[in-house]
Amino acid sequence: MSLRSDNAGPVAPAIMAAMAAANQEAAAPYGDDPYTKSACARVRDLFETPEAAVVPVATGTAANALGLAAMAPPWGVILAHADAHIDTDECGAVPFYTHGARIHRIPGDEGKLTPEAVRAVLAELSPPEVHHMPPAALSLTNLTEAGTRYTPEEVRALAAVAREHGLPVHMDGARFANAVAACGCTPAELSWRAGVDMLTFGATKNGAMAAEALVVFEPALAATLGYRRKRGGHLWSKGWYLGAQLDAYLDDELWLANARNANAMAARLADGLGRLAGVRLVHPVEGNIVFAAISERAADCLAEQGWVFNESRHDEAAVIRLVAGFTTTPAEVDAAITAVSEAVAGTTKG
Amino acid sequence: MSLRSDNAGPVAPAIMAAMAAANQEAAAPYGDDPYTKSACARVRDLFETPEAAVVPVATGTAANALGLAAMAPPWGVILAHADAHIDTDECGAVPFYTHGARIHRIPGDEGKLTPEAVRAVLAELSPPEVHHMPPAALSLTNLTEAGTRYTPEEVRALAAVAREHGLPVHMDGARFANAVAACGCTPAELSWRAGVDMLTFGATKNGAMAAEALVVFEPALAATLGYRRKRGGHLWSKGWYLGAQLDAYLDDELWLANARNANAMAARLADGLGRLAGVRLVHPVEGNIVFAAISERAADCLAEQGWVFNESRHDEAAVIRLVAGFTTTPAEVDAAITAVSEAVAGTTKG
Amino acid sequence: MSLRSDNAGPVAPAIMAAMAAANQEAAAPYGDDPYTKSACARVRDLFETPEAAVVPVATGTAANALGLAAMAPPWGVILAHADAHIDTDECGAVPFYTHGARIHRIPGDEGKLTPEAVRAVLAELSPPEVHHMPPAALSLTNLTEAGTRYTPEEVRALAAVAREHGLPVHMDGARFANAVAACGCTPAELSWRAGVDMLTFGATKNGAMAAEALVVFEPALAATLGYRRKRGGHLWSKGWYLGAQLDAYLDDELWLANARNANAMAARLADGLGRLAGVRLVHPVEGNIVFAAISERAADCLAEQGWVFNESRHDEAAVIRLVAGFTTTPAEVDAAITAVSEAVAGTTKG
Amino acid sequence: MSLRSDNAGPVAPAIMAAMAAANQEAAAPYGDDPYTKSACARVRDLFETPEAAVVPVATGTAANALGLAAMAPPWGVILAHADAHIDTDECGAVPFYTHGARIHRIPGDEGKLTPEAVRAVLAELSPPEVHHMPPAALSLTNLTEAGTRYTPEEVRALAAVAREHGLPVHMDGARFANAVAACGCTPAELSWRAGVDMLTFGATKNGAMAAEALVVFEPALAATLGYRRKRGGHLWSKGWYLGAQLDAYLDDELWLANARNANAMAARLADGLGRLAGVRLVHPVEGNIVFAAISERAADCLAEQGWVFNESRHDEAAVIRLVAGFTTTPAEVDAAITAVSEAVAGTTKG
Repeated sequence: MSLRSDNAGPVAPAIMAAMAAANQEAAAPYGDDPYTKSACARVRDLFETPEAAVVPVATGTAANALGLAAMAPPWGVILAHADAHIDTDECGAVPFYTHGARIHRIPGDEGKLTPEAVRAVLAELSPPEVHHMPPAALSLTNLTEAGTRYTPEEVRALAAVAREHGLPVHMDGARFANAVAACGCTPAELSWRAGVDMLTFGATKNGAMAAEALVVFEPALAATLGYRRKRGGHLWSKGWYLGAQLDAYLDDELWLANARNANAMAARLADGLGRLAGVRLVHPVEGNIVFAAISERAADCLAEQGWVFNESRHDEAAVIRLVAGFTTTPAEVDAAITAVSEAVAGTTKG
Repeated sequence: MSLRSDNAGPVAPAIMAAMAAANQEAAAPYGDDPYTKSACARVRDLFETPEAAVVPVATGTAANALGLAAMAPPWGVILAHADAHIDTDECGAVPFYTHGARIHRIPGDEGKLTPEAVRAVLAELSPPEVHHMPPAALSLTNLTEAGTRYTPEEVRALAAVAREHGLPVHMDGARFANAVAACGCTPAELSWRAGVDMLTFGATKNGAMAAEALVVFEPALAATLGYRRKRGGHLWSKGWYLGAQLDAYLDDELWLANARNANAMAARLADGLGRLAGVRLVHPVEGNIVFAAISERAADCLAEQGWVFNESRHDEAAVIRLVAGFTTTPAEVDAAITAVSEAVAGTTKG
Repeated sequence: MSLRSDNAGPVAPAIMAAMAAANQEAAAPYGDDPYTKSACARVRDLFETPEAAVVPVATGTAANALGLAAMAPPWGVILAHADAHIDTDECGAVPFYTHGARIHRIPGDEGKLTPEAVRAVLAELSPPEVHHMPPAALSLTNLTEAGTRYTPEEVRALAAVAREHGLPVHMDGARFANAVAACGCTPAELSWRAGVDMLTFGATKNGAMAAEALVVFEPALAATLGYRRKRGGHLWSKGWYLGAQLDAYLDDELWLANARNANAMAARLADGLGRLAGVRLVHPVEGNIVFAAISERAADCLAEQGWVFNESRHDEAAVIRLVAGFTTTPAEVDAAITAVSEAVAGTTKG
Repeated sequence: MSLRSDNAGPVAPAIMAAMAAANQEAAAPYGDDPYTKSACARVRDLFETPEAAVVPVATGTAANALGLAAMAPPWGVILAHADAHIDTDECGAVPFYTHGARIHRIPGDEGKLTPEAVRAVLAELSPPEVHHMPPAALSLTNLTEAGTRYTPEEVRALAAVAREHGLPVHMDGARFANAVAACGCTPAELSWRAGVDMLTFGATKNGAMAAEALVVFEPALAATLGYRRKRGGHLWSKGWYLGAQLDAYLDDELWLANARNANAMAARLADGLGRLAGVRLVHPVEGNIVFAAISERAADCLAEQGWVFNESRHDEAAVIRLVAGFTTTPAEVDAAITAVSEAVAGTTKG
């Protein structure tokens, strides 16, 4: 049992079945196959953008880095939240794919940027001058790394600031499905209608094996992606197994059902933990991630019992991160609540 | 029916089954899972190298480029055959991952380098001097792009020349299984025992979905690969689906059985085509690839009937490439022979 | 008249004369000439390091970026002060030459890093793990961007922290001469004896036309610099004109005399400005740079009279930067004091 | 005495005097000075292109690599002669500045490309497809590495082929002055009027200390050069010493007078050597470079007497390269002829 990460979950049965079904015969290589075509068409339908370019790749790191490389020159600055995954957890994939662009870390509460903060950094970086790397793109993460979500209105306000300075907007949507489920809006409303030019539409954390769709709403930004993907080693010869994943992910609203389950389980978890003395919910729980502050002793205790989770420690408190996934059940959530409850109460039987 | 490419074939049933079997529960992310560990152990066993580092990735382009980047500095020259896939078909993945290394194209009959040719180029590039990019690595492809194979003795002779100049040796083994099957030697004999320091051990073309193992025999060359893979976007979060592919590929000698079938079918094809007037086999058929020269009219005729293949045309002849795979059957081969026979005889019924 | 920047000053007469003297006949190209050899020997003598590699280049940006590229891999983190010139004023030269390394901005009073701050960042970046760019080097600037200086003891303490984590230490010494003059120590004491592995020993700001010596105390770090310099386009064919500049710069302690004059003039300026009501010295004046906070109106007033300087404005105050150079005279300084005095007093006659 | 290279010559007195004259007072840094402005204006006048962007840098390698980086994406192919300096003598500056572009070596007699050869390579690289690096630019060298020259008509024919494929045209004009002098045409006729979009207009080999002007005839190609130059470390703070060199170079047709002298001396040398038994002129002498084939023994003999030159040896013959410069005198040429004469006759007195 684990609430370690949605990264560590299995593949949704419908997706695994689709891959097996795609294994009946040979297909044209390098993405020129019916599964990929169907998946791309479904993405365009879902986003109500018949002209969008859709670039399937296996990892979110690849999607983010390829996308940002199409936006920012090697000497450009990409504005992002100080905790942005593209900066903190991808080992320099963005400077690698962009050939040197710098990610400017902007602090913000609850994992979120504000228009004011972005505007202030842009003012600092303006006007462009050859001694300084000029601003080149804004990257938002939704869900954020804090498990919170941007609403369409918030995205629109941030994108408007970017637009004032002529910057395109990228969204790292590793958990975009959870954000849509949480907002109760359409994918279009939370992306291009709010000013997003390019979206990493994640599937891996939400039920796929290894599949993300880079969705390019602004066609001019797609021109170089074919070359970039190939030279990055991200063009699969048997591309239909990527296509089949995404196709099944979008079929029958699987993506949304999976995200809804994860969000509901996180809400149940937050509700349970929030009632416990000795537990403090660190951020609003707006998606499928719960950050809970407990004592270091309680965290040690949970670890001793075999619970695995990301954590950070400061000032004698441990902040543990628990992530619900598409397979998470109420029983698992309740077991976690019980375990935390015992750990913080010091009543755990070792 | 198709002999288009081993790239375009399905996934071997045992491998697909292994992926499904690995889907029963969550596993530790990023390759720290039992499937990957088992696969890596099997690779080490197969190559008789308990110390080898094994780096699974999804594509051959990634494996080649990551491996060569660990060998060559940004200003280095990588010596390779003029037809080498790393230079002609990967859209600059090697200069991308190496940050600028140049691939020096060395001509050679039957897709093969000779020690003399390599030595001559090294003489030309010596002694190193800052105005010129110095030699940094030798890359061999086995099977070659011409479908021929290097024997262990040939590899040893080439590696010895590299060693004289202090260069490490990389082998692009997208079809290494076919080369081993053809040589009747062990994987060790055809790789590190013959002087190879790093091997892209391909599985994708021979039955996997998207899986290659970069095998690093010289431990010092492995030090940076973890970082390189991550920043290239090639570290899967759900790494066990890569591991499971490779694990099944190596179980029960599936890799070898698959390669033997492909080679046998190519031999059958070559035998049949070789008997036809109007057909000339362009290269010795030593693995699973057959290059046949036919008239342009015959090639057009085959295409009209729905046959798909790579071809090149010069001087009113077409050289078509037919590739047998692990699923190719005698009936398919015989159908291809018949089709070519009719096409070259001009007796095809449209 | 100008205290705008030591960047904007002329070439010292002795250096210009040396260049003219080197113009009598042809010399061997690409740095293989007697002027360059003499200059390099003088650098080694000055630093008491017979084994140091000395790499002359024309600009400080080139010296810094080449040097750091020899220290940090493309996925490495370079620790530096938040105001470090390498990060804020070189338009990404470091990520360009390193192929992607990230500069981590560490705040610190008076432009200086503290061992505690560096240790805290290193703790945050440890242990190395493939998802995160690992620490790769520490870069100090001396004189700092705030015009303050590190003493040998301070450098030693910082270098010791770097050494604990196995990191090499780079020093951007665009104004190293001023720092030495201010400390009253030897160049060795302020560099390798204190733990510095590589120094950009600046000459351009202190009397040369376009010349810096990258001094590599740790020989292993010099191995790749010849190739890096050439491919960066920084190897002059007529290298003796670089060599002659550095040779004259080091002859007869010109470097030290120039720095002493600049420092003395800055001290005089600070003394004069410090006595004025309406002027606040922002940082200790320890070299040749003075930062003075005055009212925005006073700054405007100075600008209207033709004074040119870098400035930043916050909260209705202007911080102006005045830089003394090797040619600055007491009369110039006194004129500046008078001008500021009148500007802040509002008595300026327009 | 030396005919080793025009690289190894001194600085023209007028240029040295201009640098000294520019040393009278401070100037605005980073190229925003009257000397640079005057030089750029002179370049525009000379080329009859009021809109051209002019980017001064210190080395030809920098000018070439910066210029090509503004033309070719990281995955692009740059077509050039097999002996092109950008490929053979700049240690990978082009892949460095372009972030990976490949130089495609096209053979050609007398150091020259033909439209047919370029067209054949372009056909081979067409149509663009993501597996293959697409063609991105054509680079010509004039004078060529063989010392021959392209006429305006030849340039126009080559540029037309490039234009058919939408490729921009770069010219490495390290010896452009010699080519203009040899052709008896205007600089415009040999550059943009013939289809050249960007020219490295060399001065260093023809009398400057370290100065080249990258001249961008196609304004759209100049947009990124400011950032590229700065991050390459090629923006001088005391830029007026670059400007003063170029300004003096263009004043009073110094550039042309210098080139004419060099060409005339090479012609005299060729005439003298051509009359000698045992000497074969390898290429037509159309500029300031003479390639002469002599016996290995004769070459050894010259070297023993202290002559220094580039040479290559094949089949018991040595091809020596002798280069006349702006300072070369008839007496020097005649001495060289005598020395070769004695060496080939075996009458040298050791």
